[in-house]
Amino acid sequence: MKVAKFGGSSLASAAQIRRVLEIVRADKRRKFIIVSAPGKRTSADTKVTDALIAYYKSCKAHDEQSIKSSQQWIIQRFKTIYDELGLTSDILSTITQNIIGLATLSQSNPFTYDTFLAAGENNNALLIADYFSSEGIHSRYIHPSDAGIFVSSDPGNARLLPEANEHIKYLNELDEVLIIPGFFGVTNENEVCTFSRGGSDITGSIIAAGVKAELYENFTDVDGIFAAHPGIVKAPVHVKELTYREMRELAYSGFSVLHDEALLPVFRAHVPLVIKNTNNPTHPGTKIVISRETKGAPVVGIASSSGFSSLYISKYLMNREIGFGRKVLSVLEKLAIRFEHMPTGIDDMSIIIRSRYLTPPVSKALIANLTESLHPDEAYINRDFSIITLVGEDMKEHIGVTAKATAALSKKGINIAMLSQGSSEVSVMFIVKEKDEREALRAIYSAFFD
Amino acid sequence: MKVAKFGGSSLASAAQIRRVLEIVRADKRRKFIIVSAPGKRTSADTKVTDALIAYYKSCKAHDEQSIKSSQQWIIQRFKTIYDELGLTSDILSTITQNIIGLATLSQSNPFTYDTFLAAGENNNALLIADYFSSEGIHSRYIHPSDAGIFVSSDPGNARLLPEANEHIKYLNELDEVLIIPGFFGVTNENEVCTFSRGGSDITGSIIAAGVKAELYENFTDVDGIFAAHPGIVKAPVHVKELTYREMRELAYSGFSVLHDEALLPVFRAHVPLVIKNTNNPTHPGTKIVISRETKGAPVVGIASSSGFSSLYISKYLMNREIGFGRKVLSVLEKLAIRFEHMPTGIDDMSIIIRSRYLTPPVSKALIANLTESLHPDEAYINRDFSIITLVGEDMKEHIGVTAKATAALSKKGINIAMLSQGSSEVSVMFIVKEKDEREALRAIYSAFFD
Repeated sequence: MKVAKFGGSSLASAAQIRRVLEIVRADKRRKFIIVSAPGKRTSADTKVTDALIAYYKSCKAHDEQSIKSSQQWIIQRFKTIYDELGLTSDILSTITQNIIGLATLSQSNPFTYDTFLAAGENNNALLIADYFSSEGIHSRYIHPSDAGIFVSSDPGNARLLPEANEHIKYLNELDEVLIIPGFFGVTNENEVCTFSRGGSDITGSIIAAGVKAELYENFTDVDGIFAAHPGIVKAPVHVKELTYREMRELAYSGFSVLHDEALLPVFRAHVPLVIKNTNNPTHPGTKIVISRETKGAPVVGIASSSGFSSLYISKYLMNREIGFGRKVLSVLEKLAIRFEHMPTGIDDMSIIIRSRYLTPPVSKALIANLTESLHPDEAYINRDFSIITLVGEDMKEHIGVTAKATAALSKKGINIAMLSQGSSEVSVMFIVKEKDEREALRAIYSAFFD
Repeated sequence: MKVAKFGGSSLASAAQIRRVLEIVRADKRRKFIIVSAPGKRTSADTKVTDALIAYYKSCKAHDEQSIKSSQQWIIQRFKTIYDELGLTSDILSTITQNIIGLATLSQSNPFTYDTFLAAGENNNALLIADYFSSEGIHSRYIHPSDAGIFVSSDPGNARLLPEANEHIKYLNELDEVLIIPGFFGVTNENEVCTFSRGGSDITGSIIAAGVKAELYENFTDVDGIFAAHPGIVKAPVHVKELTYREMRELAYSGFSVLHDEALLPVFRAHVPLVIKNTNNPTHPGTKIVISRETKGAPVVGIASSSGFSSLYISKYLMNREIGFGRKVLSVLEKLAIRFEHMPTGIDDMSIIIRSRYLTPPVSKALIANLTESLHPDEAYINRDFSIITLVGEDMKEHIGVTAKATAALSKKGINIAMLSQGSSEVSVMFIVKEKDEREALRAIYSAFFD
């Protein structure tokens, strides 16, 4: 059995929902369908979820006029889809009541905001289940409370409770196609509680892991993953298969794909995942697997990400001072600065930090604190760096990967501020000045893929 | 004024000591002369210090016969030099009494061993001062207690006490050439206490810092430092000038030169140091300075060192586990394992450890402890690695240093297990398999110097 998750753009209009129907119909194994809230139809459109946020704010401000207009906009959004799908059932009145009912929720309940947010997915699932049934699919809407998605009581940051999987697996015993709204679970007190970033992706992953699916299909609006950012590299090659480790390195290093939390449940349950395109469903997409056969090409993808700074600290005989590194880390901790990498030399170290943490007052405090507690010879911050990461499981067996990449950068006159190979078996990291990022990415891509 | 320190091989025979006299005579500014114990005259010879160790053991064992033969050997050693120098003074009877007197020291005194060891330097200083005077040099033997070398009461590991510098600076007021034995100081209880590794070099550095010398001349039996190990690279280029940072990187990475503790006092006092050859005193040697003008060549030296292992640990989503790195370090600490580098990836890290720490039982305990406390996906040790370090102050400004080195290795088919550039501003570190070390060093040397 397969779990198929459809994103907001795949469900933004009746035309899109008809495609989804065809996709579900095309494979009997697609039994668990996870749906998002309707997304944008055009770039100028508003997402239903954003409209629900505005609606919540109006309620909080007791602004009757804007409450009304929010309700009308949202209901009309669902009605348009309902009409275009040619539905005649009473599901629209259920949806209408649900939307209007939100305004009566207590503003002092910490889960009220989550309940507003989740209404996009929840009502879309109701609508789609109704449409599927009308088209002769033996299907059924399942609320997360009936699906067994029991979560912790952390509004906006729900975590699956360990006992949930015991409940989720019983979904296998239902013989209908199950339409499950993404993005939220229910607490032990039966409150709606949403997941953090990557909402519906997380629900799909949790269900796929819980029912031990043969495959988790994540339908988006692209044919999967490309070896480099198509906005920087012209027509980069498509990636057929990636391991979870490779996927995570790429995601961490700048690829906008599935969020960590969405990967973890399927990774742990050893369920493979495929990223597919709703608008091009016969394309094989990109499959994410536990392990793969590597076939000679050491690099599968090259990611880049800007907005980093480097904190440089040097002190003669640093490596004889026991606990020096630990003291540096406690200064960072005290100032609530997270760091990404901390490669150490003998008498100096460079700490890579996301620049957003280093506001002028924090930077000043950081240098002052380090100076006071460690008396370094030098301590300063360099800004405007980008990280370029070459990813591939087979990299460590290949002689010359780094030579090829460094030669490509050198030929373009791009200085490598930092380079780390071998701390990770699946990636090599280059740090360059932000101004060189795009050219560096193109040069390295060209060296490996052209 | 200059401080000149002469090593054991520079003082092993009358012929060598005559050279030392000429060197001192050649420059009036050489006012502080630090001497070692007589070293080996041929490779089959015994150092006086080693003979003193045997003498100490005989005393401890109350072995009268071997006590006698030790005393005779040591006294004869000094007598040979005395005779060859043509001396006629009563210094030989003083030395004879000193050597015989050692046998009467209490074996329960924790400083007795140090007093035996220091007798090589101390009596050699007496002999040389006597010879210098006989040759018309206005000179004087100074015992460390008169020089102000006051140290902590740590037998075999003396540290200079902070108040010592106040005393040492008064040496400037004496107008003779001062002959000071290296390798030891005196405690507040007036006990002889020796320094750790690099003994006489440390004394020279302490005196140079204390008297604020214009230069600390460290006389050895080589013309200074070469850009790579002459035993591996054929006729490597001579290095004229190095900064203290460069020197330390090279020393740490495998160059057998001055020990850290010998560098620190002169570094702190901003006294430059020169390594010169007693047997070729007109050669300018290698100067160690606080800062230098870099003139285009980014790499000044390439060091290599074997005997390293890599502990690899991977765990999916490692970087979301707060304190993962800290926990790894505490496992290492519990097992008393020191580590050299700990570059981290996203979901994996490699920790570089000297192989001598990783005996089979320790390795087993390490993996077992890591597995139990951190549940990694993988944790294993790879052995037989060497570290190759490229050193140069001007490296970070140079595009293509790493490209050149990696290309050289790639061309020879040598795999780079790990590479770190930019954590230190003055070095780039490559880790290769031990079997590739010599060829890697030659390839990189050739790329930068041929």
